[in-house]
Amino acid sequence: MSDTKRSTRPVVAVVGGGQLARMMQESAIALGIELRALVEARDGSTGQAVVEAPVGEPDDPAAVAALVRGADVLTFEHEHVPQSLLARLPPTLSVNPPPAALRFAQDKLAMRERLRELEVPCPRWARLETPDDLTRFGEEVGWPVIVKTPVGGYDGHGVRVARGPGAVDDWFREVDGPLLAEEKVPFSSEVAALLARRPSGEIRSWPVAQTIQAGGVCSAVIAPAPLLAPDAARQAREIGEAIAQELGVTGVLAVEMFVVEDEDGTGQRVLVNELAMRPHNSGHWTIDGSVTSQFEQHLRAVLDLPLGDTATRASSSVMVNLLGSSFEDPSQGLARALAVSSDVRVHLYGKSVRPGRKLGHVTVCGEDLTEARALAEEAVAALRGESLDR
Amino acid sequence: MSDTKRSTRPVVAVVGGGQLARMMQESAIALGIELRALVEARDGSTGQAVVEAPVGEPDDPAAVAALVRGADVLTFEHEHVPQSLLARLPPTLSVNPPPAALRFAQDKLAMRERLRELEVPCPRWARLETPDDLTRFGEEVGWPVIVKTPVGGYDGHGVRVARGPGAVDDWFREVDGPLLAEEKVPFSSEVAALLARRPSGEIRSWPVAQTIQAGGVCSAVIAPAPLLAPDAARQAREIGEAIAQELGVTGVLAVEMFVVEDEDGTGQRVLVNELAMRPHNSGHWTIDGSVTSQFEQHLRAVLDLPLGDTATRASSSVMVNLLGSSFEDPSQGLARALAVSSDVRVHLYGKSVRPGRKLGHVTVCGEDLTEARALAEEAVAALRGESLDR
Ligand SMILES: Nc1ncnc2c1ncn2[C@@H]1O[C@H](COP(=O)(O)OP(=O)(O)OP(=O)(O)O)[C@@H](O)[C@H]1O
Ligand SMILES: Nc1ncnc2c1ncn2[C@@H]1O[C@H](COP(=O)(O)OP(=O)(O)OP(=O)(O)O)[C@@H](O)[C@H]1O
Ligand SMILES: [Mg+2]
Ligand SMILES: [Mg+2]
Repeated sequence: MSDTKRSTRPVVAVVGGGQLARMMQESAIALGIELRALVEARDGSTGQAVVEAPVGEPDDPAAVAALVRGADVLTFEHEHVPQSLLARLPPTLSVNPPPAALRFAQDKLAMRERLRELEVPCPRWARLETPDDLTRFGEEVGWPVIVKTPVGGYDGHGVRVARGPGAVDDWFREVDGPLLAEEKVPFSSEVAALLARRPSGEIRSWPVAQTIQAGGVCSAVIAPAPLLAPDAARQAREIGEAIAQELGVTGVLAVEMFVVEDEDGTGQRVLVNELAMRPHNSGHWTIDGSVTSQFEQHLRAVLDLPLGDTATRASSSVMVNLLGSSFEDPSQGLARALAVSSDVRVHLYGKSVRPGRKLGHVTVCGEDLTEARALAEEAVAALRGESLDR
Repeated sequence: MSDTKRSTRPVVAVVGGGQLARMMQESAIALGIELRALVEARDGSTGQAVVEAPVGEPDDPAAVAALVRGADVLTFEHEHVPQSLLARLPPTLSVNPPPAALRFAQDKLAMRERLRELEVPCPRWARLETPDDLTRFGEEVGWPVIVKTPVGGYDGHGVRVARGPGAVDDWFREVDGPLLAEEKVPFSSEVAALLARRPSGEIRSWPVAQTIQAGGVCSAVIAPAPLLAPDAARQAREIGEAIAQELGVTGVLAVEMFVVEDEDGTGQRVLVNELAMRPHNSGHWTIDGSVTSQFEQHLRAVLDLPLGDTATRASSSVMVNLLGSSFEDPSQGLARALAVSSDVRVHLYGKSVRPGRKLGHVTVCGEDLTEARALAEEAVAALRGESLDR
């Protein structure tokens, strides 16, 4: 660490000021950890909840250097800190996940190459340097194919369905560097393997969860994944743990996967879609549905503290995202949302409303999955300001 | 409210900067509620966790007036705001608990008088104006008796065992106003009934918990109370709910009680000791052991939002207080405490170490009460910096 440490408490520096760092703070307070965050706005989601929250850009070396001064650990709530910046941090600073691992969450092409080396099951894919490469790949695997910008995508931005040659000519002109093409996987569902790993090696996985996307954005998560066969669940978990170990991931790792039914209908396979090395939307259910939440576990993991129990607290948990609201603030729907059922667990992120923006989520844990989901959806509708009879 | 509201989110103002307001903030962040606190020190337990945390005294009218400007609700983490100050707050401000109820948590003599009117079972007691009153009471109920300063006591300060006349002559000289004498109840255990009540009337009780004190300070809590007969548990809960209703308590109410075994050994009775109108040490187990924690429930109740489920998440929860530590900061024992078991739930308050000071707590939930308690004690010993083989 560059400077003397001011606090006798563990100090974790996090880059990012969205809901993920905000939810880390809930656990940091409980554990007596001092969290400080480099945020986009002082009154943003994290800035409202963290006392030491300097405003700055994640790619500004001076801002990051100031943030980590006196901190024990640097971690991230997103993937936008450049490797060039990370390379120049004080060598004594513990960075979790380490830059050499984080790279595979930052660059989807690097991820595909590395997973191929590790023989991890993935969709067929190709590196595209020119429009001709896309034509060749499409003819090989069949149209349509999926094309992605390897860097900087999120919530479906940077993902396109290419129905034929020329579908991403604009990207070839605008995007700096190659593109990634993937076969369009005929998945029956999507799941995420979630785990945490400490620098000293301990790994704890949560039950694999099903993720449901709408328009490229995660809209709901069900844990444990109800449509996943036990064999496939075990495979998903093993893949997640192998990736964590081989890549040297520290902190929370989410591995998004496609579930494909075998042609003869006898089994399922999983194929890796992408990696996130931080708490992930697919793990928000753990706050209410698991003994240890992914946010607490991330803090424990990056500080190399013993990890917590990942057992579930109910036979199923359903998490539904609040995407946009017709209210000035979704808290105006809080009374109605909480009145849906005393089992409704509301989480609001303190963000200003924009159409489709992730403003919060609702979790319901229970024995009856169908009922839990209906309650969660109804509570989210209340927070969106929708009338009850849609 | 005196001024225009700046936030579109619910704003709760709390007086006090200790661990209770700090733990309220964990839930405020989750619910998208803006918590602001009047604290003793900017870098104290609450100040570390709350962005808007002005420093001021709880009996300073200007400080409290500034705190509530633009807030929806005023609430408290302790009983030290004078009634005279509360009487002069803007009449449009919602104060929960209302001053007329809070009075009975501030003044043990007022509480005893009111509970007598309500015919709530209490120890025999007397109001002492002179040393002669004590002599008379001691002769009536038998020595020793318990004498208390009606106002300002906490953690056993202001409670004395009087073995004969003259035992509290110093208090008669120093304390302004009368004293409270109580028979020394031969209790078999102590319990607390915990509930929350909304201004609009809804009440939710948690299971009654056993509280274990050492040297007048709460040292451990077990929920549900293992030594409490079902009839007595029901009685305790009903007494709690009756008090909440009759006194018009809003927010969390804890009713401390003595359990007395019937002479013929066939049953138990409960007698009320005292009232706390805020989250209470006897309810810290709810953070990990109940669907809704007392801190979240308090915020929901004071904002008159629908209350959450108070069901337990495990068959028993054991909470052990961390009182003092030989470390500079108890977080230095965090790694060893968490290594005790992945079921150990550590809560640290960010307070500087002083002998006997409440610095945090550990909760373990499980099926086996004896094992849970042993794990919690072992984790606390680690945070205290004690060697394992004491
Ligand atoms: N190869 C593929 N075959 C079929 N569907 C795909 C493929 N790749 C992506 N998708 C769909 O698009 C969604 C978003 O893709 P991806 O996760 O790669 O993008 P992203 O922008 O990083 O999203 P996020 O950040 O929300 O996870 C996937 O969850 C899936 O529904
Ligand atoms: N009448 C009594 N008979 C027997 N024991 C008593 C009596 N009153 C108090 N005690 C003992 O003293 C402890 C502290 O008393 P009390 O709760 O009134 O004080 P306090 O200072 O308000 O404590 P705290 O704030 O920690 O609850 C009780 O928990 C009980 O163990
Ligand atoms: Mg994705
Ligand atoms: Mg007491």
